Amino acid sequence: MKTIDVNLNNPYKILIDFGLLNRTGELIKPIINGSKVVIVSDETVWNLYGKALSESLDGIKHQVYILPSGEETKSIKYFEALCEYFAEIGLIRTDLVISFGGGVVGDLAGFASASYMRGVPFIQIPTTLLAQVDSSVGGKTAINLKHGKNLLGAFWQPMLVITDVSLLDSLESREFQAGMAEVIKYGAIESKELFDSLLKYEDKNELMKNIVKIIYNCCDIKRKIVEDDELDLGVRMKLNFGHTFGHAIERAGDYKQYTHGEAVALGMIIASKIGEKLGITAHGCSDKLIEVISRHKLPVNADLDYKELIKYIVKDKKKTQSGINLILLNEIGKSLIHTIDADVLLGLVERGI
Amino acid sequence: MKTIDVNLNNPYKILIDFGLLNRTGELIKPIINGSKVVIVSDETVWNLYGKALSESLDGIKHQVYILPSGEETKSIKYFEALCEYFAEIGLIRTDLVISFGGGVVGDLAGFASASYMRGVPFIQIPTTLLAQVDSSVGGKTAINLKHGKNLLGAFWQPMLVITDVSLLDSLESREFQAGMAEVIKYGAIESKELFDSLLKYEDKNELMKNIVKIIYNCCDIKRKIVEDDELDLGVRMKLNFGHTFGHAIERAGDYKQYTHGEAVALGMIIASKIGEKLGITAHGCSDKLIEVISRHKLPVNADLDYKELIKYIVKDKKKTQSGINLILLNEIGKSLIHTIDADVLLGLVERGI
Repeated sequence: MKTIDVNLNNPYKILIDFGLLNRTGELIKPIINGSKVVIVSDETVWNLYGKALSESLDGIKHQVYILPSGEETKSIKYFEALCEYFAEIGLIRTDLVISFGGGVVGDLAGFASASYMRGVPFIQIPTTLLAQVDSSVGGKTAINLKHGKNLLGAFWQPMLVITDVSLLDSLESREFQAGMAEVIKYGAIESKELFDSLLKYEDKNELMKNIVKIIYNCCDIKRKIVEDDELDLGVRMKLNFGHTFGHAIERAGDYKQYTHGEAVALGMIIASKIGEKLGITAHGCSDKLIEVISRHKLPVNADLDYKELIKYIVKDKKKTQSGINLILLNEIGKSLIHTIDADVLLGLVERGI
Repeated sequence: MKTIDVNLNNPYKILIDFGLLNRTGELIKPIINGSKVVIVSDETVWNLYGKALSESLDGIKHQVYILPSGEETKSIKYFEALCEYFAEIGLIRTDLVISFGGGVVGDLAGFASASYMRGVPFIQIPTTLLAQVDSSVGGKTAINLKHGKNLLGAFWQPMLVITDVSLLDSLESREFQAGMAEVIKYGAIESKELFDSLLKYEDKNELMKNIVKIIYNCCDIKRKIVEDDELDLGVRMKLNFGHTFGHAIERAGDYKQYTHGEAVALGMIIASKIGEKLGITAHGCSDKLIEVISRHKLPVNADLDYKELIKYIVKDKKKTQSGINLILLNEIGKSLIHTIDADVLLGLVERGI
């Protein structure tokens, strides 16, 4: 088992290994201390693994709240329903919430834990690759508004993250690939070694043999960044490499055409091309990114008018700020936050990227 | 002008004086720094003072969101509407929310500020005595669930509290008295001097001559307690003197029969009588409380079956914990947190309080 210690105000551990789900009871026993335990999950995950989790809790009394699967669940409606449920069962501030699912469940259960009685301890058991390398770590929780994704939330750190990589076996290929986009991102912004290693694996089998180490590397990069900037006021923005363009691509596809990971993959390519044009990113970086991204079966081209897309972003951002923060690479494994005048960016895009 | 410095992670000031509303623009200028300003208020307050506040902002661009007046506004529904409004006008994390109203507006706008984009700076301009001595200070924000009051919220400290005591002139007597219940509470738990002074004032006129000092004393007591225990894990519970019983009395009257302050006044008397029975509270305390409470035209007797009420509280609390935390007085000006076995409390009540 690999362990990461996250040193924030309330330090916590990320545990990564095969087969951890069956050890959940043993792993959380030191934390629960007689408190009520509520598991929040979704239909898909609970049908697959609910029995295993319940059995592993062996003797620890628990209640279960099952949400519908899918992004639509990350709404005020389900947030309210979950919090009313907490109140109904008499949850108090010394009890424990276990989030058991992907990013949607983790974000929603996390925000509910942060807000109910102004904060109840919670544990993350992420079940997708995306959640294991990204959303379960670092304490960002959120739900969507009609006006946009992740607009309501809290910084609320978990007490423990239990990452069982065996759960990835049941993940659909496209969801697994979406998670790989974030893995590629970590390599691109902070670790040439991780990035290069992603070209080595012949197939998913071989990659899975190294998955504990890969997830460990990603979470450890995120740990360092979050320890430096928990509240996302500076260096943490680097984790958004590819995301400004990615979010716009997701929206352009009405959140159906592209997964988050696919959109981020496309966004990283756009960002590295812009960086090259600006003379900030070393030439060849976008080619290397394209190579790794296509190797992991993520798209390198979208059926979208990039020029229009970027114009839209710029106009949207210009409403609220004059400069636009872009995350760019210096080279593979090194990144920076670059503030660019909106009109300069527009001019650049006009000349074609 | 009296000033209190609250020393938490992000230190802030509480300013208290007559006529501060007309100086709001000047007072907030050092904070806003070009950011967008949104005022959140309610119909009653805005009709009375909206023009004065807008004029005082002289040149500072601002937008205004008006909520319906009343406790019903502290709901998920209005929380969602306010946050969607923030998104609609393109509010970002460096902008500023001004809460302008009583406890309802402050609690709702505060929680929205805490949650929107995981936190936007906000300023409190409390307009009721209750908000000026209590809810605007200390960073507790909340909304109600169907299952109970203040069940969803965040600890989110304001950047500045501007307390204009002139605004109290338009307050209805009953609301002013409700605020006085909290003033009496501060005296009872922490300051014999404050408590005794409340017997001196011949009428409201005389009290108003001393109101800046009174509010200063209350806020300074709260400041000390909040600095020691921002997250309400220990000594901050003392601020709940009278509130456990008070909340039950409010609920028994369906939140219509008694104001929060009236219920707290009744609750303090119950708590001091129980303390006397237990031999913890000095004899005579409940009589002194009754004297001050009736002097300020708050009820000392309710048309309620106290025995049934306390039984209900005990049964409710027993669902989640074995011991019940009571805030009791040792004497006027000294208080403690006393954990009592639920059955012992029930037995005591059976023999009559």
